[in-house]
Amino acid sequence: MKKFSVLLVILCCAFAANAQQALRDRIEIHSGIVNPDNTVTIQYFAPDAQKVMVEGDLVGEPTAMLKDEHGIWSYTTSVKEPELYMYWLRVDGLRVLDPSNVHLVRDISTLFNMVLVQQPINDLYSVHNVVHGMVQKVWYPSQRAGMTRRMTVYLPAGYDDSKKTKYPVLYLLHGSGGDEEAWMELGRASQILDNLIAQGKAKPMIVVMPNGNISDQAAPGEGPDGLVVPGIPGEHRMDGYYEETFLDIVDYVDSHYRTMKDAKHRAVAGLSMGGYHSFWISLYYNNMFQHIGLFSAVYMPREGISNPVYADYETGLQKLFSHHPNYRIYIGKDDFLYQANVDMRKYLDEHHYPYVYNESAGGHQWVNWRCYLSDFVTHIF
Amino acid sequence: MKKFSVLLVILCCAFAANAQQALRDRIEIHSGIVNPDNTVTIQYFAPDAQKVMVEGDLVGEPTAMLKDEHGIWSYTTSVKEPELYMYWLRVDGLRVLDPSNVHLVRDISTLFNMVLVQQPINDLYSVHNVVHGMVQKVWYPSQRAGMTRRMTVYLPAGYDDSKKTKYPVLYLLHGSGGDEEAWMELGRASQILDNLIAQGKAKPMIVVMPNGNISDQAAPGEGPDGLVVPGIPGEHRMDGYYEETFLDIVDYVDSHYRTMKDAKHRAVAGLSMGGYHSFWISLYYNNMFQHIGLFSAVYMPREGISNPVYADYETGLQKLFSHHPNYRIYIGKDDFLYQANVDMRKYLDEHHYPYVYNESAGGHQWVNWRCYLSDFVTHIF
Repeated sequence: MKKFSVLLVILCCAFAANAQQALRDRIEIHSGIVNPDNTVTIQYFAPDAQKVMVEGDLVGEPTAMLKDEHGIWSYTTSVKEPELYMYWLRVDGLRVLDPSNVHLVRDISTLFNMVLVQQPINDLYSVHNVVHGMVQKVWYPSQRAGMTRRMTVYLPAGYDDSKKTKYPVLYLLHGSGGDEEAWMELGRASQILDNLIAQGKAKPMIVVMPNGNISDQAAPGEGPDGLVVPGIPGEHRMDGYYEETFLDIVDYVDSHYRTMKDAKHRAVAGLSMGGYHSFWISLYYNNMFQHIGLFSAVYMPREGISNPVYADYETGLQKLFSHHPNYRIYIGKDDFLYQANVDMRKYLDEHHYPYVYNESAGGHQWVNWRCYLSDFVTHIF
Repeated sequence: MKKFSVLLVILCCAFAANAQQALRDRIEIHSGIVNPDNTVTIQYFAPDAQKVMVEGDLVGEPTAMLKDEHGIWSYTTSVKEPELYMYWLRVDGLRVLDPSNVHLVRDISTLFNMVLVQQPINDLYSVHNVVHGMVQKVWYPSQRAGMTRRMTVYLPAGYDDSKKTKYPVLYLLHGSGGDEEAWMELGRASQILDNLIAQGKAKPMIVVMPNGNISDQAAPGEGPDGLVVPGIPGEHRMDGYYEETFLDIVDYVDSHYRTMKDAKHRAVAGLSMGGYHSFWISLYYNNMFQHIGLFSAVYMPREGISNPVYADYETGLQKLFSHHPNYRIYIGKDDFLYQANVDMRKYLDEHHYPYVYNESAGGHQWVNWRCYLSDFVTHIF
């Protein structure tokens, strides 16, 4: 067997051939680097480019980079607040992703580079050395929709250790253009829950993140259609059909997980279109959910949409509020749905339906929705 | 409440503000499209570019694209065999990702675009309408490594329905540069298992995919270090330390899942560095694993590495083979580790240790490892 040792296997060479090829192909620069002072440095190799810009919420306004003698363009931001930022580059007018930062996130059909500026301790969006929950991708049969469908389930730390403990459930719904990945990827839901539960600020809970595009089985690339182009699925998203099929999800969860099955231990919350779904689900099944979170929500269906779900919302709301729900509305001052939320609050006020109102700065964006989730989960169960 | 209906919420407008920005920013072309005849069309908008090439295993050799009068570069491949292909673009000499195809995969520190050419039925890498297993991201405590560590666990369809059935376990190990995501993302492990189990060609089994970079807690971006630059973790990867801590993984799996706990119902397999780990794990714990899969494996430690794991491999192999293991070696004719595998087989032959040998075309690449996995899982348990 000594004969083998002729082979000096330096395992640094043992990559996939493609990866080796690629490593040779590119200048080894690192970009999207958070410096010790919380500035962020972006670098891009493009010796022949005339103009390279950084764009995205990392910089606010598009910002020019500077080229050095090696053809490497650089820019270092001002000191950034702890947050998850998105950016991309614009090279001679063309939008490109930063090839030296592999951390990307997909929002609808567009990819962005990501930078996470962490606080020294306990920023909610980072992974800390606390006990972690488990994240599952599961397929549930939706008899009402006639297909199996993929969803994401978060189980709190300890779920698998204690075989008897039952947990409350938060149903957490994505917006238009999102899917069962959105709250995990863009929303940092598992990190937020892990950290707030570890700090004792949120109760251990199961979080169920279904796919609200009820005509689809799964996120783009995760279903039988293959690696398809993510579109904006139009059919049956805001016509009541998803709400009608929602009990398939609750039934699956209640029969496959150790859940507390009463309204007091069920919450439904969502952003934008998911706020709309949460609004209608909570009043259509008006004795099932005690905790309701509406994040930058839409409320009213489009003109001409008719469905049993929307048929008698006045009675639905009346019944819902007769149970004294924990009703929480979140909206940003600059959100294009701000006025819709003013109108909704006026209606609730006129009917003496109590709710908690949280108004933030900013608009219709993930920076806000992560904050709303971080607040909401500390006020339920 | 009628007042609200003034607001005509066309929810197509209700994206995240960032996504809206990005959608305005780019020409709406679709790329990486598989046509009905299994050719693949790539498109890229770059009116001012001089030369745009497609590169990667989708095309074999770098291939020039052609520009039309709108500044859109196009290329359509020849008819492709069903397979998962990788590609990228080269624009005036610079490597860029295709911005009109959101399907990417990370291999070590490099991103590639992906195209999946599907067969009409039953290609193993696609999601089909069969019952699906569940994929979990779990954190296990490694007392020997002194940290909690992330791993991926695949549970076969039906696991959660039958509360009593016990399952065999395959420990599936990644290569150098990979992590607990590699077999799922690049290896299509859950699709391969779902399909082969549904076809009755593989037994329902649990598949555990740990992180073999024993100094790390998790894949880049998934651990406490934040969205770090993926490096090539050098420490404690091929010095026996991972093998020494491996029982922490087996203990966790056996205590948290309904497993069959005997050697006959345990397999260990891996690619490249993961083949090395599998080789040493199977002979160090020589009565624990009856099924061993070595995919493009490395065998011998570097000169000068000393560890109890490597101390007496001759006795270890002798004991292992006294149990008549199901020992399977896979290698590609063009693999740079081909000779190492010739030497290993010679050693096994000289000692009359029986094994099954599978030689394929091609080299050290995922195209092969997906095939090896697809074969291996039909021959175990």
